[in-house]
Amino acid sequence: MSSEAVRAIGAEQVPYFRTPEFSELMLENERLMKRFAKADDNARVVFITGSGTASMEATVMNVFTENDKVLVVNGGSFGDRFAKICAIHDIPHTEIHPEFGHDITDEMLAPYEGQGYTGFLVNLDETSTGVLYDIKRISDFCNRNGIFLVVDSISSFLCDPFDMNALNVKVMITGSQKALACPPGISLIVLSGEAVERVNANQVKSMYFDLKDALKNGERGQTPFTPAVGILRQIHARLLEIEQAGGVESENARIGALAADFRNKIKGLPFETVSHAMPNAVTSLHPLTASAYDIFTILKDEYGIWICPNGGDLKDKVFRVGHIGALTEDDNTTLVNAFKDLQAKKII
Amino acid sequence: MSSEAVRAIGAEQVPYFRTPEFSELMLENERLMKRFAKADDNARVVFITGSGTASMEATVMNVFTENDKVLVVNGGSFGDRFAKICAIHDIPHTEIHPEFGHDITDEMLAPYEGQGYTGFLVNLDETSTGVLYDIKRISDFCNRNGIFLVVDSISSFLCDPFDMNALNVKVMITGSQKALACPPGISLIVLSGEAVERVNANQVKSMYFDLKDALKNGERGQTPFTPAVGILRQIHARLLEIEQAGGVESENARIGALAADFRNKIKGLPFETVSHAMPNAVTSLHPLTASAYDIFTILKDEYGIWICPNGGDLKDKVFRVGHIGALTEDDNTTLVNAFKDLQAKKII
Repeated sequence: MSSEAVRAIGAEQVPYFRTPEFSELMLENERLMKRFAKADDNARVVFITGSGTASMEATVMNVFTENDKVLVVNGGSFGDRFAKICAIHDIPHTEIHPEFGHDITDEMLAPYEGQGYTGFLVNLDETSTGVLYDIKRISDFCNRNGIFLVVDSISSFLCDPFDMNALNVKVMITGSQKALACPPGISLIVLSGEAVERVNANQVKSMYFDLKDALKNGERGQTPFTPAVGILRQIHARLLEIEQAGGVESENARIGALAADFRNKIKGLPFETVSHAMPNAVTSLHPLTASAYDIFTILKDEYGIWICPNGGDLKDKVFRVGHIGALTEDDNTTLVNAFKDLQAKKII
Repeated sequence: MSSEAVRAIGAEQVPYFRTPEFSELMLENERLMKRFAKADDNARVVFITGSGTASMEATVMNVFTENDKVLVVNGGSFGDRFAKICAIHDIPHTEIHPEFGHDITDEMLAPYEGQGYTGFLVNLDETSTGVLYDIKRISDFCNRNGIFLVVDSISSFLCDPFDMNALNVKVMITGSQKALACPPGISLIVLSGEAVERVNANQVKSMYFDLKDALKNGERGQTPFTPAVGILRQIHARLLEIEQAGGVESENARIGALAADFRNKIKGLPFETVSHAMPNAVTSLHPLTASAYDIFTILKDEYGIWICPNGGDLKDKVFRVGHIGALTEDDNTTLVNAFKDLQAKKII
């Protein structure tokens, strides 16, 4: 759910963007993103017009080569995507498979200590199952082994506490449509100073995903190609909103409280939590008495409420309730009352 | 300039997209795009979240290989981009360089007859200089030589008469932000039936630009990754607007009349037309008495009117006036009156 301010920008004519005004806006977007990610002073931010997958692929292409040896946490469909991207681009990689709905453990990492791995790819919040991996554990492992750590934080950024510099995360990826609560269409790559150096030293067989070119244009607040200008203007308004409301810590706390309120209110309903390490962004639920997709459809068509269904094998088993964007505790109550109504009607 | 209907959608919350409703909308987008491009029955349309360059690169990667031999018309910065994309992806290619502001001629094509070329890349309207290439001449050349013709029609689609099937154009590329008059963020690839077969037979080293995957998902009206849902909904509204106003021929005629009206009204002003083959979408002008970029800035800051500056070497020499989207003859008059005011003030 987007705020009124963000939606109002969506109704405006999109201005031409090769202007000092748009450059200034983009440079402020970069400053605020660096602040909220807690990136180092030499860090840079690249704005890709594309989905989160575009930035996942661009990152792998620009920071790893065939000479790397990369560990990939594959605990769901987004981890699987990182593994596939490595395969497509001939990046040697090994997959770690946490149990469904479970965090990664020290035992799972132990076999890879001192084995010459150079890179690590993880989706901090594996949203297909709603698992928040223990980033401190992963960071410690990477620090011990001198491994370049790349974190897809698409669904976690602004939701869960995260300190890129303290955790020695080299690249953090996020998207416009999660806790930034803007329309989808932009994904963002925060590159640490060290990652910037690596990108600049690398050659990539791509024009659109050449991050060197993006970094160079970004110095003057511009992009190599026409970006989704409207969404970048919405991101700007949203970053200012967060800043004015107390910054990233306030937004973490707000989303955390909303998640706790929801999880408290659903007690007694015929749902089972799927995740053993729940993120603040989303609660994944397995309904015990009905199809998850049917519940999604009924809520959408008869109650005008949108929850998020799963795809593939989990379609009938799991639905997800988001706690990000312009939502309140009253919205939680509205949804829980709808669940209770479905229960009274013996639909669940 | 976007219409009221398109802007109103920009103000709405963006719905979740893995739904039958969104699939139906996307299938209708595909039907209308095929109709307006005059594509064959087996043609398909892919919607890429990205700039026009993303679709240019995706097309080259998916329809050509290292075994091709491609001619590229390089008459400006967009032609140059096609040549660079071929170089990045190791596609053997030869550049044809029309004179600045001039159309391609039979004499320029003659040396390449019967030389074993297999592909042809052209930006139908080379918008950096405002030249509309003679697509009939190019089509005839390609037909004589059995060459696979790819047309970037980003700035020409809906503006100039075009019949993909009659011209035997295998792929047509366009974008959301030109005559579709929606915000930038989506580019569109119309693949003829033959191009679909070629894509499906090809292997591409990319996840995001794997058009096979896009085609497969598109069969059910979906995309492999989260697209710019809001812009796709705006494109839908806009395509329906065009259909209801008489279809592509009416839109061609409307834009053509608007361009003629503007070109008539500027007679006597100290401007020289740059192009010797003007498209309907845009008039490129070289101001004889002032910097083109200064004129752009003064109009923007003091008159609230947006014309389009050029970048690079042409920055001070050429500005462009668009005739696409929600503009009227009254808007032409407003702009021409501003020019006359600048003339009275001795600024131009």
